[in-house]
Amino acid sequence: MGPRPGAGAADDSETDYAELLIGDLHASLASPVSESMNFLNEIALRYPDAVSLAAGRPYEGFFDLDDLPRYLSLYRRHLTERLGDEEDVRRTVLQYGRTKGVIHELVAEHLRLDEGIIADPQDLVVTVGCQEALYLTLRALRRDERDVLLAVAPSYVGVHGAAGLVDMAVVPVRDAADGIDLDDLVARIREVKAEGRNPRACYVIPDFANPSGTRMSLETRRRLLRIAAEEDLLLLEDNPYGLFGDPDGPPTLKALDTATRVVYLGSFAKTGLPGARVGYVLADQRTRDAHGGAGTLADQLAKVKSMLTVNTSPIAQAVIGGKLLAHGCSLREANVREVATYRHNLTRMLDGLERRFGDVPGVSWNAPEGGFFLLLTVPFQAGDEQLEHCADRYQVLWTPVHHFYADTRPRNVMRLSFSHLRPEEIEAGLDRLARFVRDQQQN
Amino acid sequence: MGPRPGAGAADDSETDYAELLIGDLHASLASPVSESMNFLNEIALRYPDAVSLAAGRPYEGFFDLDDLPRYLSLYRRHLTERLGDEEDVRRTVLQYGRTKGVIHELVAEHLRLDEGIIADPQDLVVTVGCQEALYLTLRALRRDERDVLLAVAPSYVGVHGAAGLVDMAVVPVRDAADGIDLDDLVARIREVKAEGRNPRACYVIPDFANPSGTRMSLETRRRLLRIAAEEDLLLLEDNPYGLFGDPDGPPTLKALDTATRVVYLGSFAKTGLPGARVGYVLADQRTRDAHGGAGTLADQLAKVKSMLTVNTSPIAQAVIGGKLLAHGCSLREANVREVATYRHNLTRMLDGLERRFGDVPGVSWNAPEGGFFLLLTVPFQAGDEQLEHCADRYQVLWTPVHHFYADTRPRNVMRLSFSHLRPEEIEAGLDRLARFVRDQQQN
Repeated sequence: MGPRPGAGAADDSETDYAELLIGDLHASLASPVSESMNFLNEIALRYPDAVSLAAGRPYEGFFDLDDLPRYLSLYRRHLTERLGDEEDVRRTVLQYGRTKGVIHELVAEHLRLDEGIIADPQDLVVTVGCQEALYLTLRALRRDERDVLLAVAPSYVGVHGAAGLVDMAVVPVRDAADGIDLDDLVARIREVKAEGRNPRACYVIPDFANPSGTRMSLETRRRLLRIAAEEDLLLLEDNPYGLFGDPDGPPTLKALDTATRVVYLGSFAKTGLPGARVGYVLADQRTRDAHGGAGTLADQLAKVKSMLTVNTSPIAQAVIGGKLLAHGCSLREANVREVATYRHNLTRMLDGLERRFGDVPGVSWNAPEGGFFLLLTVPFQAGDEQLEHCADRYQVLWTPVHHFYADTRPRNVMRLSFSHLRPEEIEAGLDRLARFVRDQQQN
Repeated sequence: MGPRPGAGAADDSETDYAELLIGDLHASLASPVSESMNFLNEIALRYPDAVSLAAGRPYEGFFDLDDLPRYLSLYRRHLTERLGDEEDVRRTVLQYGRTKGVIHELVAEHLRLDEGIIADPQDLVVTVGCQEALYLTLRALRRDERDVLLAVAPSYVGVHGAAGLVDMAVVPVRDAADGIDLDDLVARIREVKAEGRNPRACYVIPDFANPSGTRMSLETRRRLLRIAAEEDLLLLEDNPYGLFGDPDGPPTLKALDTATRVVYLGSFAKTGLPGARVGYVLADQRTRDAHGGAGTLADQLAKVKSMLTVNTSPIAQAVIGGKLLAHGCSLREANVREVATYRHNLTRMLDGLERRFGDVPGVSWNAPEGGFFLLLTVPFQAGDEQLEHCADRYQVLWTPVHHFYADTRPRNVMRLSFSHLRPEEIEAGLDRLARFVRDQQQN
């Protein structure tokens, strides 16, 4: 706040309007992360007719508004069977409710069926999307400026965002072909400890990472868990895309975790409905207070939640609960069409890239086995400036990879997404991208 | 994390389980505020058959699960008329959406009709309940340890909770018969500034405050706005109960605010449906960045939100949007039965207190003109220990007022709520309370 703004404007001259300088607000608001999100949203709005190889959204072709009353009524019937009393059913869905959520038992059953994770429903906190789950976890773990988070670089923008809100430093760990360079992880942990700081946790997306699309091998998962135990570290496993791949792939870290080293972050945005904004966190780590009182980390996350959003809308939970009930709690079952669509899209992307760039020097890409994304390497800088030019002249959008490093230095890699597109849109997008790449190379 | 827990237990002895000490987690988790919320929830669960004069919940008698599909379909029709395209309608409700929300224009119309507040819909951020609105605002305003929040003591527990999450000190301002001691406010501002700290804002509930039930006079509102302008302070106006009183009462601070001094925090938990978890913040303060770029505080709050919960469930927003549409956007109109119920309950409480305590020395209470709460003063300490005794022996719950001071020192005041009770429950609750008070006095 400060000097009267618009002092030159006659209308304002009598009034001492409040004015806030961004520099006087919390640092997260001027960070590259927050600028990233703004820039990417804004460019999508500015070029609505461009093909977007940028948006990481689920395919809308199967969305149906009539599902909402159907899911609500399925969940209502389920509650009536369980609670007996109609007044209790009404109260559960419409009144203030349990901080940890009301669909925890259905979520636990889904985890058992689809992921082989045996979860005590009391260790689950149902959240406002996975992003809130991430915030709750980082807020609880960050006591002071010595506490740091490790994360593979590049990583999902939201992890940098949530860490920024709690002023938690993110220490980058080197990426590798199967998701993480474990030697670098150990080196970073040692380095952080030598500086007198505490590596509280390492954030990973083992299955079809955002942005790289890579999947960790079983051996890497086992070694990662061993390192976590040896170094007394938690692993934050984020798994929004795991269902969209080979069901015989390696188990999640949490399914392999025999020592409560893994905090598991779940999302229904891709497997349920993004508009419900329902996610969850499974945090079965034991806690101890000064008086010897015991509990689990989930109880502590619920305390943070009670001060942040109070509880997740039970109406939104009922929608997801109904979708789970409609498919016997198996989201793999609920997503048969979606899985097929995403796999077709992935094949089409890989074939399309091969056809257009197979013999272009300096252009390469990775070949994920599932998920929503892949990385395309080009022989020139692909930053925000190039994206703007490409959007304006070629009508195709992609995501400059520097946004996933939480900095502003352009690199020669783009994230391409293919989840939400129809086949003809993928072809059109790749055609335009090929023209852009060719023209850039000739400059 | 640390030493192996359960080292004595044979089953655990081979495994290095993660264990977390509460003292190693964020300070908010060991604060009196967080213990408050836990204790109050826990005691309500332990005595489910007690009459609760503690819960600040809306009356459930008018709740109807069939309203959900009706509201959803009203909002859907409204969107179809506005957008034309069915695909856009589906996308708006079911896909990821606008960070600031999708029912902002309906909310602005409600503010115009019911509160005489003229709001640019672009200055609104639709939030996960009012609690998230409070968090977003405090997160943005708290840059470093010098930034403090002023708040009337006693104040709503949630303001202490949100401030704790961002490590923001709350400086108490003395209460008064009409809501705030303005001389003390000025004295506290001066004191804080003299210490080199920045009083960023003052939190107030001008209409039927929680816990006191008091309503500020028009003169107090005008003086408060003048002080805010003179001292370059923002006012955070929280208004969950304003509709439940005389419609000819004084205007909200925001309606009187000609200089964007007021950030207005709104809730639909009491006027809409608690289960939707939808609230909002109106933040029309202008901001300026280092490059001269201009915007409003709402844009900054949306940035925080994008890192916290991404967006408020558009399904939950559609439910509230439908309720607004069902009543021409007037929540006063939508709540005719509720307003009558709460006023009857208030009258019954005041009559009931008079009948039982009118001639009891040392017992007194205030007489709010609306809202959900009042304060009862008793001639003995009424802290957590007394509450437990009262719940156990007399089967009636109330809230010890120390919880609203964010400390643990018992005082001789209880908050009594009456919003969610049927008439016979009020009578039974007051009978039990009278027996408890009489027995306490005889000890």
